[in-house]
Amino acid sequence: MADHQALHLHCSVPVRSATVQLAHGGGGRLMQELIRDIFVRAFDNPMLAQLHDGATWPVAEGTLAFTTDSYVVSPLFFPGGDIGSLAVHGTINDLAMCGAMPLYLSAGFILEEGLSMETLQNVVESMAKAAEEAGVQVVTGDTKVVDRGKGDGVFINTAGIGVVPPGIRIGPDEVKSGDAILLSGDLGSHGVAVLSVREGLRFTGEIESDSAPLHRVVRDLLGSGVPVHCLRDLTRGGLASALNELAVGANSGMTIEESLIPVRESVRGACELLGLDPLYVANEGRFIAFVPESHVDEALAAMRRHRVAHQAVRIGSVTDVGSPIVALRTVLGTHRILDLLSGEQLPRIC
Amino acid sequence: MADHQALHLHCSVPVRSATVQLAHGGGGRLMQELIRDIFVRAFDNPMLAQLHDGATWPVAEGTLAFTTDSYVVSPLFFPGGDIGSLAVHGTINDLAMCGAMPLYLSAGFILEEGLSMETLQNVVESMAKAAEEAGVQVVTGDTKVVDRGKGDGVFINTAGIGVVPPGIRIGPDEVKSGDAILLSGDLGSHGVAVLSVREGLRFTGEIESDSAPLHRVVRDLLGSGVPVHCLRDLTRGGLASALNELAVGANSGMTIEESLIPVRESVRGACELLGLDPLYVANEGRFIAFVPESHVDEALAAMRRHRVAHQAVRIGSVTDVGSPIVALRTVLGTHRILDLLSGEQLPRIC
Repeated sequence: MADHQALHLHCSVPVRSATVQLAHGGGGRLMQELIRDIFVRAFDNPMLAQLHDGATWPVAEGTLAFTTDSYVVSPLFFPGGDIGSLAVHGTINDLAMCGAMPLYLSAGFILEEGLSMETLQNVVESMAKAAEEAGVQVVTGDTKVVDRGKGDGVFINTAGIGVVPPGIRIGPDEVKSGDAILLSGDLGSHGVAVLSVREGLRFTGEIESDSAPLHRVVRDLLGSGVPVHCLRDLTRGGLASALNELAVGANSGMTIEESLIPVRESVRGACELLGLDPLYVANEGRFIAFVPESHVDEALAAMRRHRVAHQAVRIGSVTDVGSPIVALRTVLGTHRILDLLSGEQLPRIC
Repeated sequence: MADHQALHLHCSVPVRSATVQLAHGGGGRLMQELIRDIFVRAFDNPMLAQLHDGATWPVAEGTLAFTTDSYVVSPLFFPGGDIGSLAVHGTINDLAMCGAMPLYLSAGFILEEGLSMETLQNVVESMAKAAEEAGVQVVTGDTKVVDRGKGDGVFINTAGIGVVPPGIRIGPDEVKSGDAILLSGDLGSHGVAVLSVREGLRFTGEIESDSAPLHRVVRDLLGSGVPVHCLRDLTRGGLASALNELAVGANSGMTIEESLIPVRESVRGACELLGLDPLYVANEGRFIAFVPESHVDEALAAMRRHRVAHQAVRIGSVTDVGSPIVALRTVLGTHRILDLLSGEQLPRIC
């Protein structure tokens, strides 16, 4: 494939059209101009400038992490973010949940014929800004164009590579009976922010997406000496789905307390109006951490030093029940089982 | 994001629907079943089974390569391949063109609501087969579903990681005046194979895509001791576009001989009928290598030992013209300039 490394072309006067055309994906001059004028300008860095089919770099001995996500959020722009910033934060966060510090991202764009060039530019600039703020580099990329009616403006895939510090072992199989479950902040803002734009709703006090990179709070949490057993970000399916996945992975029961789970009043109200349960709504800047009960205070202190986790709280614990059931102790003191949803709650939320 | 690592779920009786539904991307039970029944079954390996947000693995000190491509080929199935095998071969080949041996792939699927589950299964199985034959593992993945009419069946993104052997330096800036340009085989089969299905044409003697992994021939070429200066696969835009990109990257002129460039008669005939120039048609299993003139015979011998490059030939050389112009000496002995195409030749060819 002709990748973004293969870019610097005959620098004739740029022919910039107002919309994306099929020829922008065809491997010829228009594609080269698109890459040069939009992508390279935004992401410029020495590895992207290697002008090759892929990026190469020397590594020291260690442990690497590798992840990928495609982003199809609709609409492309929403309060607190857009598909570009989301594509950076989401993949950084998947690396962070492996305990890894993110280094490099790839960016694959699938553009729909007729997409406004201005929209594309705004998305790419937001992506570049999010990457810069997070200290990661977009080092390789690709662009495809599909015919009108065969896509939806822009889809983005990012893959990410990160480095796991020595001695870190994080994963569902590290979760132990008795572990405390910590939640980094309030739930539901991302899903409600996206849905409010999609449905044309206005809520009292605009609700902004919580989309944010989590690698620095994870780095400091791991650096604090707390033996973190597992981390998980609370994206599609929200807290309830993440706990269910981990309960199965760890083959353990989990119990959380409804009264301890922070949900902003405006989000709670919007969820009631929309018929959503905030425990199942997607977040893009929230995570849970499993730590030994004896290290809860240290862990919460380390997390709360970061703006993205200043509301961190202990919400429950891993029980010694031998079956992977997630129970919620409600504000009324009763218990209900938090299961996976069978159907769809919120399509195209990320 | 809930990635494919987070999979093993309540193993109730699988509810398999005949088509993809929006809920298959929603983070709930249907998504988990899709991942378990289709993706994990096909790609099963220990890293995918880590049940985490990304794959992690130890590396030795060295040089890594990283690349990405999205695949939007239409139709999904064509003589000699399909979007699944293409998504493996294409990304492997980008790594190979960096001199890297591919290790791991990610796989990101964007599915259109209503896609037949059987089609998806066939694509994924083809992908798994191609990966196994090439000796690479799909270690992390993601699935999104978009509403009917907002996608086109299935789009696939793969990112790849590979290891570059010590001492290898390959890139456009390594190209030297006087270098010979070697071509690994005949041109145009992939583009013509895809187009023939799309347009419902039948040519005498079915034309099959040349889609194939190139990492083993590259490994042996590098291992033969030939000081390879640059490699490039001939995908979108074909040979002419690749040469133009490299001429600019190397700031050198290049001259190739039309009479030396192999094009099968059936492909040549189809191109004439379709109004295509085979020098601009996409290939998915062909590459060019830049080597010192003194090493041409060794290099060709190493390449020809592999079925995918048994027709390898020297087609031209890098000239000492100080401007990045690609010239074709025609069969009539005249010269014409091979420029980048301004418009679109073949949309959605990969």
